[in-house]
Amino acid sequence: MVKFEGYEFVEGGVCAAEGFAAAGVIAGIKAGNTTKRDLAMIYCAERCRTAALYTTNKVKGAPIYVTQKHLKDGYAQAIIVNSGNANTCNENGIEIAEQMCELTAEALDIDAEDVLVGSTGVIGQPLSIKPIKARIPTLAKELSPKKSSEACEAIMTTDTRKKELAVEFEIDGRKCHVGGISKGSGMIAPNMATMLGFITTDVAVCRELLEKALRKVNALTYSMVSVDGDTSTNDTLILMSSGLAKNPEITCEDTNYEKFENALYAVMMNLARETARDGEGATKLLECIVKGAPDENTAKIVAKSVISSSLVKAAMFASDANWGRILCAIGYSKADFDITQVSVELASEKGKITVCTDGAGISFSEESAKEVLSEEEIKILVDLHCGEGEAIAWGCDLTFEYVKINAEYRT
Amino acid sequence: MVKFEGYEFVEGGVCAAEGFAAAGVIAGIKAGNTTKRDLAMIYCAERCRTAALYTTNKVKGAPIYVTQKHLKDGYAQAIIVNSGNANTCNENGIEIAEQMCELTAEALDIDAEDVLVGSTGVIGQPLSIKPIKARIPTLAKELSPKKSSEACEAIMTTDTRKKELAVEFEIDGRKCHVGGISKGSGMIAPNMATMLGFITTDVAVCRELLEKALRKVNALTYSMVSVDGDTSTNDTLILMSSGLAKNPEITCEDTNYEKFENALYAVMMNLARETARDGEGATKLLECIVKGAPDENTAKIVAKSVISSSLVKAAMFASDANWGRILCAIGYSKADFDITQVSVELASEKGKITVCTDGAGISFSEESAKEVLSEEEIKILVDLHCGEGEAIAWGCDLTFEYVKINAEYRT
Repeated sequence: MVKFEGYEFVEGGVCAAEGFAAAGVIAGIKAGNTTKRDLAMIYCAERCRTAALYTTNKVKGAPIYVTQKHLKDGYAQAIIVNSGNANTCNENGIEIAEQMCELTAEALDIDAEDVLVGSTGVIGQPLSIKPIKARIPTLAKELSPKKSSEACEAIMTTDTRKKELAVEFEIDGRKCHVGGISKGSGMIAPNMATMLGFITTDVAVCRELLEKALRKVNALTYSMVSVDGDTSTNDTLILMSSGLAKNPEITCEDTNYEKFENALYAVMMNLARETARDGEGATKLLECIVKGAPDENTAKIVAKSVISSSLVKAAMFASDANWGRILCAIGYSKADFDITQVSVELASEKGKITVCTDGAGISFSEESAKEVLSEEEIKILVDLHCGEGEAIAWGCDLTFEYVKINAEYRT
Repeated sequence: MVKFEGYEFVEGGVCAAEGFAAAGVIAGIKAGNTTKRDLAMIYCAERCRTAALYTTNKVKGAPIYVTQKHLKDGYAQAIIVNSGNANTCNENGIEIAEQMCELTAEALDIDAEDVLVGSTGVIGQPLSIKPIKARIPTLAKELSPKKSSEACEAIMTTDTRKKELAVEFEIDGRKCHVGGISKGSGMIAPNMATMLGFITTDVAVCRELLEKALRKVNALTYSMVSVDGDTSTNDTLILMSSGLAKNPEITCEDTNYEKFENALYAVMMNLARETARDGEGATKLLECIVKGAPDENTAKIVAKSVISSSLVKAAMFASDANWGRILCAIGYSKADFDITQVSVELASEKGKITVCTDGAGISFSEESAKEVLSEEEIKILVDLHCGEGEAIAWGCDLTFEYVKINAEYRT
């Protein structure tokens, strides 16, 4: 995890912020699943100001349409999520998603319009409401501020690790929190690179700035991750604010807003980073840091192009300093700059190697490069030497395991 | 090979057209290579009207700069090509490429400005002129109309099959030919999807229409192939016309021009298709045929998106009718159409299965689908049901072998 001064990592994940509780149970949504939690609930004692972002894919999961509808007033109080089936491209998907909200509302004694819904898993297979209906009452009873991890487990599909994090910080002497859980491992690409992310906070912030902060931080974090270039149909990122930190409400972009936005960045950046690290079949986290670009957008395009290249990813799997492939990926990115100025360095905890300056290779020790690249976290440092624009993108290596997982996922 | 009426497949490849000869020798360009041909020459008895297209990557191999310079007058008489080293991102790359042309010119007693040059292999490693210099005189002596296959072998890198083809047809009672050799297996993506393609013809056609035909047919063939989404630095496609068929010169877009263009399509389409089939690690050729698009460009975008999706490719490797991934890839393609109208069929020699209509899944026999998808040539038929636009794109499945090849390529 990348640390930020003034922000302390704390336990609690999506329940670290005041007012939130969660739970996850085994519902048996995917036939044969009797061991993994697959139904999660997140609940807040208060109705929350809530902002959300969704996939840009034209094919959208049914839960997205229902969540968008329920969020029209900008408020929500609970989220119900299943894994094992994406509830997408089904004839009665919307109906099922609505039912999930209604059953949750009933169990929690709240308005169905205040319940949001998410699904993740195989596309195009009917989702039965039966196992969900059977388990929602239990799920509601089991809600606890200590069960972020269970909810986190319940939203996982091919994820191998839980992605869960919270930070604590102060605004005007009040203890504040931002925390979240997130899943995503395959079918992960900008924009945006998560299938599901649920972030909560107790910071009191007006609806407009809540949405602004989510949009801005998403653009710098989840939208800078690619595992396989496939943009999912079900990407949903939700940010709920209980306001229970009792700080003076943030209504303008002052230093308090900045503190909040930085907290959001600390959580979402680390969750996004962990998503890349846990990419399907990945053995390595790739972090491409581009600087010296004519502007931020150019830096983003170049950084994404590098971490998305199948050939760069395969080379990194082999700890092979095949920098020609990096330069090639920089070259075909649709960005404008002078390729003859570009320098590339490869770095990890084992050190740093310059492999290319002025757009051409320089001699370096292959042995040292191999040592640097054998680490689990690799930095690819690109300097375009033609401006001040900077960006970071995260990806992972391409491995046998990625192919194995995706050749066997459905069957 | 896909057959076209009026065009007969004939022997001879890049030498089928009147006037052309070729050869390929072992020069030992890649250290340790003593068994595979790696230096090729193509020569014509006449100076040829010549058109060419190059990679859109900002990082361009040195040979491209030299070829562009030598082709300024629109004429060429010979091509010298090496595999084993891309001669790209090297300090003295241009100098080496120029030397390759000069040595070839000397051996053939022609003007160095009439020699074009290509290189393919690893990027960013110095290319020594020594082994090339030593072998060019032999290569020139060995030139023969029967040695297209040797030249074809010499331009291969990770290709497992030779891509070589020629057709014979008639224009105004004269026997005409279009033939070619092509290589490309990894780092293959639109535009354009070949590393190297050399096409020759004996049809007499004016320079302007030669270039127009090449550009048009390339857009429908090589530029519709993707193996891994990485656009190479060295893509070069050259079309030489000797005019020795002695047909009345084609100077306007009449039926004779159409015959020529169709011949070019028959050759380039089949070479492009074979490039996809021989994609690194591929076990299957994927052909995505899109119809009913609002326009041709939309059809192209959708077709390319489907055959480029890692998840679709991995599913095809497993003969898994995971059509949700196909719909997902259609959905995130940057094209405008109504997703609720889309239908998808999967077909092969074993039959055809409809898996999705009106943007939603329909029930089908998984067993029959598995049988259809277990073939080596898979058609993915997409109908957008909102216009007359059509396009075809070619790709391959994503396999363990792709990762293996690219994790070990350089080392």
